[in-house]
Amino acid sequence: MEIQRINPTQRWSDATVYQGLIHFVEVPAVLNADMQGQVKQVLAQAEATLALGGSDKSRLLMATIYVTNLAKVPAMNAVWDAWLAPGSAPVRACLKVELINPGMLVEVPS
Amino acid sequence: MEIQRINPTQRWSDATVYQGLIHFVEVPAVLNADMQGQVKQVLAQAEATLALGGSDKSRLLMATIYVTNLAKVPAMNAVWDAWLAPGSAPVRACLKVELINPGMLVEVPS
Amino acid sequence: MEIQRINPTQRWSDATVYQGLIHFVEVPAVLNADMQGQVKQVLAQAEATLALGGSDKSRLLMATIYVTNLAKVPAMNAVWDAWLAPGSAPVRACLKVELINPGMLVEVPS
Repeated sequence: MEIQRINPTQRWSDATVYQGLIHFVEVPAVLNADMQGQVKQVLAQAEATLALGGSDKSRLLMATIYVTNLAKVPAMNAVWDAWLAPGSAPVRACLKVELINPGMLVEVPS
Repeated sequence: MEIQRINPTQRWSDATVYQGLIHFVEVPAVLNADMQGQVKQVLAQAEATLALGGSDKSRLLMATIYVTNLAKVPAMNAVWDAWLAPGSAPVRACLKVELINPGMLVEVPS
Repeated sequence: MEIQRINPTQRWSDATVYQGLIHFVEVPAVLNADMQGQVKQVLAQAEATLALGGSDKSRLLMATIYVTNLAKVPAMNAVWDAWLAPGSAPVRACLKVELINPGMLVEVPS
């Protein structure tokens, strides 16, 4: 079966679509924003990616939320909770790591 | 196809079941326990989650084991090795990160 | 449906194959190598694992690249970019964590 790749570069694709499953990773495009601003960007990008793959945010299966500062998790959660459609939350792990770009506060593979 | 969500809240679901695949994340429910006690909780919870999704621990595909202290990995491994049915170990990555709740020693998405 | 496990031990399998999806984790086998040497090992091992599972590197869906030193990401990327077949990059997350063996510079679940 064909694998659909969305915006492939030599290093990564924004998303892959295969057998009804979409994998994607979102990072904030604009870094001079606080945690809530960066999370809003990531989630808006996720919606666009899901649409390109023929899905939507009500059908998320699993997300990992990498943050660089645990003190900002409540700010992240406020945006996250407001974004999800009721009854459609994915499985979620949230943890602190270091990300490649020091301006990034959050990265979300799903 | 319908997505089955186990114990959905506004923030996360305990598990999602779709196309024969179960995704779940387990964290210890009782934090005043040492690493072995926390891992035993996580694995017992995983068994319960798998049963709700129509599967069992002999059919794990992949697990990530997030720990907060690498010195406690041998204690974790002892419980893990004893828990798995022979011949049924999943693919596994184990790494040190920081978790949201400082009392949590381990978190396991699968 | 049967789950195929490649090189199962009591603790982990090198790969699992189920419903057309392969999960695997690679770590460098020889640790007295620099980042480029370790990444080359990991990617060669990934090719061997994919072949055992009936796939190849042109069909990767998602990879997480755990590194222990962000300063070595450019060295990792150079090997990674040269290895991928044009147009076939997977979704990718790359982040700094601590790995179990302090000699490991990189670990790649996919």
